[in-house]
Amino acid sequence: MFAPVYLDHNATTPADPAVVEAMLPYLAGLCGNASSRHEYGRGARRAIDEARSKVAAAVGAHASEVVFTSGGSEANNLLIKGAAACLKPGVLVVSAIEHPCVIRPAEQLRKRGWTLHKLAVDAAGRIDGAKFQTLMAERPSIVSVMLANNETGVVQDIESLATQARAAGAWFHSDAVQAVGKMAVDFRRLNAAGVNALSVSAHKIGGPKGAAALILDKRLDIEPLIAGGGHERGLRSGTENVAAIVGFGVACELAAARLADLAPRLRVLREQLERGLVALGATLFGRAAERLPNTVYFAFRDIDGETLVGQLDRAGYALASGAACSSANPEPSHVLRAMGVEAELARGAVRVSLGVGNSAAHVDGFLAALQATMLRLQQLTAMVV
Amino acid sequence: MFAPVYLDHNATTPADPAVVEAMLPYLAGLCGNASSRHEYGRGARRAIDEARSKVAAAVGAHASEVVFTSGGSEANNLLIKGAAACLKPGVLVVSAIEHPCVIRPAEQLRKRGWTLHKLAVDAAGRIDGAKFQTLMAERPSIVSVMLANNETGVVQDIESLATQARAAGAWFHSDAVQAVGKMAVDFRRLNAAGVNALSVSAHKIGGPKGAAALILDKRLDIEPLIAGGGHERGLRSGTENVAAIVGFGVACELAAARLADLAPRLRVLREQLERGLVALGATLFGRAAERLPNTVYFAFRDIDGETLVGQLDRAGYALASGAACSSANPEPSHVLRAMGVEAELARGAVRVSLGVGNSAAHVDGFLAALQATMLRLQQLTAMVV
Repeated sequence: MFAPVYLDHNATTPADPAVVEAMLPYLAGLCGNASSRHEYGRGARRAIDEARSKVAAAVGAHASEVVFTSGGSEANNLLIKGAAACLKPGVLVVSAIEHPCVIRPAEQLRKRGWTLHKLAVDAAGRIDGAKFQTLMAERPSIVSVMLANNETGVVQDIESLATQARAAGAWFHSDAVQAVGKMAVDFRRLNAAGVNALSVSAHKIGGPKGAAALILDKRLDIEPLIAGGGHERGLRSGTENVAAIVGFGVACELAAARLADLAPRLRVLREQLERGLVALGATLFGRAAERLPNTVYFAFRDIDGETLVGQLDRAGYALASGAACSSANPEPSHVLRAMGVEAELARGAVRVSLGVGNSAAHVDGFLAALQATMLRLQQLTAMVV
Repeated sequence: MFAPVYLDHNATTPADPAVVEAMLPYLAGLCGNASSRHEYGRGARRAIDEARSKVAAAVGAHASEVVFTSGGSEANNLLIKGAAACLKPGVLVVSAIEHPCVIRPAEQLRKRGWTLHKLAVDAAGRIDGAKFQTLMAERPSIVSVMLANNETGVVQDIESLATQARAAGAWFHSDAVQAVGKMAVDFRRLNAAGVNALSVSAHKIGGPKGAAALILDKRLDIEPLIAGGGHERGLRSGTENVAAIVGFGVACELAAARLADLAPRLRVLREQLERGLVALGATLFGRAAERLPNTVYFAFRDIDGETLVGQLDRAGYALASGAACSSANPEPSHVLRAMGVEAELARGAVRVSLGVGNSAAHVDGFLAALQATMLRLQQLTAMVV
């Protein structure tokens, strides 16, 4: 069977075999409803408790600060809308480069009387510090800035931003879905600096789709998005997806154990990739900023990103054009627009996101396939002209 | 290993082996993000499309009417809060015996200016038709009445209720989570009678935890609860839980194929069980109403339901006291209170919910264990006195 090389780990990751093995008894066996008061129910509850401790340990949180959700999008919506529901309508600040699952709920709040400000970034994709300070003078109630961007991999200094936001009286949330597993994330330390909530997700770190968590400072009141039986301390009702939560716990354990080796290894691969891309004439986005070690976001002038991704898929390399999560949206990336990249170049944007299974041979093979594809596309263009 | 007989299928069901087998390639293999435009992503998209058709077929809906969610609680919250967000605050009617994941979101809407009425039921657990008519005169905007109750198994005549609600100008929703797989559910027919939305869930019908759907009449506008990348026609964002959705599709297929044989078989087991319970002096709840073929809800005066369930668990039978989903709630069942059952008797409530794997030997064994347990409890009580 034809199995393309997978270079799209920021979209999703293959589940680690140890994750699948840990999940299987809860999928194939008789896994109770964790609220049931018989042995099947208690077994499910114990498994969830154990996973909760593992997730907490991986991000430096306490188990009681972990609120399980069905995914990162739910965790972000829960925080944004759930916190807003406990406050009087006020000012909400999110960065202009947030994932749509932060931007859209923020926009929904406008209908409920909130004032929304989207925070500008500089050409490298970093939050504009001066503009941030100016916005803090408006005394926002909620500020949300992602730890690392899914498209560029650019990492924000959220400790400094959170300290300023807290001084201005705001609750501070950070979407850490892309950061966990690729850089150290310590909620205890971030919380001391002023971060009140973090979103993390299983399927970005070798865990299954269907499990994620909001790590939540208990001083921050939120209203449940999914209300009902009172699960997750009343903050997220619904029968727990036991198998996925168990897999999330194991994935967190593996990610934490692996990070010290993995991050430098990915960085070496990325440098190899970037040297090759520069030699081919690519523009690299966000390169002046601190970035995740696995992410390369680039474009070639006059080559459409979608087309390139389609051709490379056929050549055996799976990667993304723009953001993978907004399939319905054919416009150029809102992240690149916020960075001031002209629309024509932004339409060429292609993202390689490396992961555990990638090697130097993958990078070499990809660069060769890219060069061949570009040559063919240029010849086709020349023929049309 | 000690494996109690499972008699708690309304809480959750074991996943069918065929379901697990269908899920495995999407768990253990490289399953893409269904929004990704490479082969791994397209494979995930195809799997979701196929599952959507299977779910739709099982409930007589069109695939385009299926909105996947992470669970029944999410589907119910999405409908109640999502429909309300598109309307001016008005009158909302839900039955007093709804699952908490309908009642709680309805209560949240009160804070946003809605008037909430909880619809009374008669002593058998059926909606009080006269009171329903009276409430329709208040011109509600949204009415939600479950198809079958999780505790009593009592089935409502939602076609008649929906017709009246629609005539009064309301949108009509029904939580069908407990009904699917145990009785025929045909959305096309229900929709013609006036039902605009149905909630269905995978893990109640031999599918996995983590997948469910809102079956939605497209004339009914709803705002997403989880906003973001625009998945599920913009109504539910978030990376799809491909494996769970695939399992849901297979479970629906099996449930539909199995129903004609399963329902009468469960009814025979239930009658066997009820004869035994009556002989032991039990009160059976909802017996005068039409009920699901698998559910028996009963109590013995002077015997605490929790205690009985705990003792029977040790004796090798897994069942529920009151509703299984509200673990944090030690009060007597709100369903029994709505039926006018006195608190003392309600505290004795125990539910047996049968499923595919149960046999006449299980029922006989259970009745023997119950009798022995009651004898022991009565002796203990006598000693204390």
